[in-house]
Amino acid sequence: MTIRYEKVALIGLGLIASSMSHAMRQGGMAGTISGHARTAETRAVALELGLCDTVHETAAEAVAGADLVVLAVPVGAMGAVAAEIAPHLKPGATVTDVGSVKQAVIEAVAPHMPPGVHFVPGHPIAGTEFSGPRSGFATLFTNRWWLLTPMAQADLGAVAKFRGLLEQMGARVDEMDAAHHDLVLAVTSHTPHLIAYTMVGVADDLGRVTDSEVIKYSAAGFRDFTRIAASDPTMWRDVFLSNREATLEILGRFTEELFALQRAIRMGDGEHLFAYFTRTRAIRRGIIEAGQDTAAPDFGRSKASS
Amino acid sequence: MTIRYEKVALIGLGLIASSMSHAMRQGGMAGTISGHARTAETRAVALELGLCDTVHETAAEAVAGADLVVLAVPVGAMGAVAAEIAPHLKPGATVTDVGSVKQAVIEAVAPHMPPGVHFVPGHPIAGTEFSGPRSGFATLFTNRWWLLTPMAQADLGAVAKFRGLLEQMGARVDEMDAAHHDLVLAVTSHTPHLIAYTMVGVADDLGRVTDSEVIKYSAAGFRDFTRIAASDPTMWRDVFLSNREATLEILGRFTEELFALQRAIRMGDGEHLFAYFTRTRAIRRGIIEAGQDTAAPDFGRSKASS
Repeated sequence: MTIRYEKVALIGLGLIASSMSHAMRQGGMAGTISGHARTAETRAVALELGLCDTVHETAAEAVAGADLVVLAVPVGAMGAVAAEIAPHLKPGATVTDVGSVKQAVIEAVAPHMPPGVHFVPGHPIAGTEFSGPRSGFATLFTNRWWLLTPMAQADLGAVAKFRGLLEQMGARVDEMDAAHHDLVLAVTSHTPHLIAYTMVGVADDLGRVTDSEVIKYSAAGFRDFTRIAASDPTMWRDVFLSNREATLEILGRFTEELFALQRAIRMGDGEHLFAYFTRTRAIRRGIIEAGQDTAAPDFGRSKASS
Repeated sequence: MTIRYEKVALIGLGLIASSMSHAMRQGGMAGTISGHARTAETRAVALELGLCDTVHETAAEAVAGADLVVLAVPVGAMGAVAAEIAPHLKPGATVTDVGSVKQAVIEAVAPHMPPGVHFVPGHPIAGTEFSGPRSGFATLFTNRWWLLTPMAQADLGAVAKFRGLLEQMGARVDEMDAAHHDLVLAVTSHTPHLIAYTMVGVADDLGRVTDSEVIKYSAAGFRDFTRIAASDPTMWRDVFLSNREATLEILGRFTEELFALQRAIRMGDGEHLFAYFTRTRAIRRGIIEAGQDTAAPDFGRSKASS
């Protein structure tokens, strides 16, 4: 039997919310979908694409009567949205969010939630470097992890129903503690993004010296970095500001190790470099075996361009 | 008219050489192909796959009578191979290499080249994270850059003929100064690889704390890093040791910028972060416009796995 919410409200209509709409529409998982976005342009696109049945100028209007409310705004905007919608939430409604950081979102949102409303914090580990209502697609979550960090007092029935919805959208769901989530993501996502942003910035500085060569001859390494560094600036600003402790902790370890490799290069210590590179190669195998990427031999290039 | 070498010798039978063999065979660009690899196993695979018509235990035997000799060994091994083959080179032969660093290779190889032999240093900016004789494929070079760094006294006819061969294999060819090549590649390839290796190493250290979670939940950022960090350890050790100056120069700039961003995170300076991330996003557009990657919306994931 299909798990289904009679009315779903999407607050924020970017990549994640629009992909959820496509997936829920395709699977008949939502009766009606209401939506809110800050700009009239995004709201118009959402209607044009059929992402929402109704769009609203305020989040408060959008959530009226909704059984499931999805907060899909940048992490830094979650608190204000929660405060705004709180008096308008239907008793018994489930509220979730899709923020990349969980402790800060819980601190910002949970205090506003009225009794009888079920807040289930979540994070789909899925995305592309594109953003906005036109960037979504129904299979974004297929075989991707969606992490939930339910609080101790969570209503188990509400969590189970929402979890079922996510699985219907193709996601694999796990539950964990919010602090642990933030540390793991600092390693697997937040710090790599900051590093990619930095490297692309350095290349841009040098680009003025070497004209367009940095772009023209962008090899595999740099090309992949630019893709990561093309992600939404607002979203990522908020991620770093709200997962500050864990990101700084991992950055500290990163620079320590980088300095050790830098020293090995300066001293001509080939053994150190070789041992390090051999170790990291093995990790790649683990990721392919865990089903989180394919072993396509050319960075997906030939297939993607065919 | 097809440009063609009667006899081609491939010294080293990894990803690049095996891809060249496939491409040359497919286009009828080589009469016979001889090959040398250090291990008997690789030589057997080369015969089994038809990469070579003959294989030889020594590089000296392989180059006998060859009109084109391709040095496709790690950068650190180029000098020894050049010394070994020098007395056996056919007068008028063209010798090229495929090393990722050009100044160090020229210093190691050029002094050994006899008069009348044409040395044309080159670097195909193409690769995957796989290595070995089974990893090659004929389209590896399609629409990729192949940079040549011919020396001042180069024979123009020999360079033009070799350039034509590369274009027949689908590559786009440019010529530049070797020092300039090494700086540009330090930005676009060498430093990004070192950074990716480092980040994956950090994650591995933490992996012992968080069990397999780092791999299980590897998000886009980290997943791409692991792909980069799975490249051949020997090749990359040699790249860093032989392009030391340029790599250390770019690494210095990188850590400077990283520290500035780290400080912005610590101080909660959202404006700095937002401005930086907006700038780097624009660079991505430049790369897509330059034809060096596709705008495929999901890191090629859905297409690669379909």
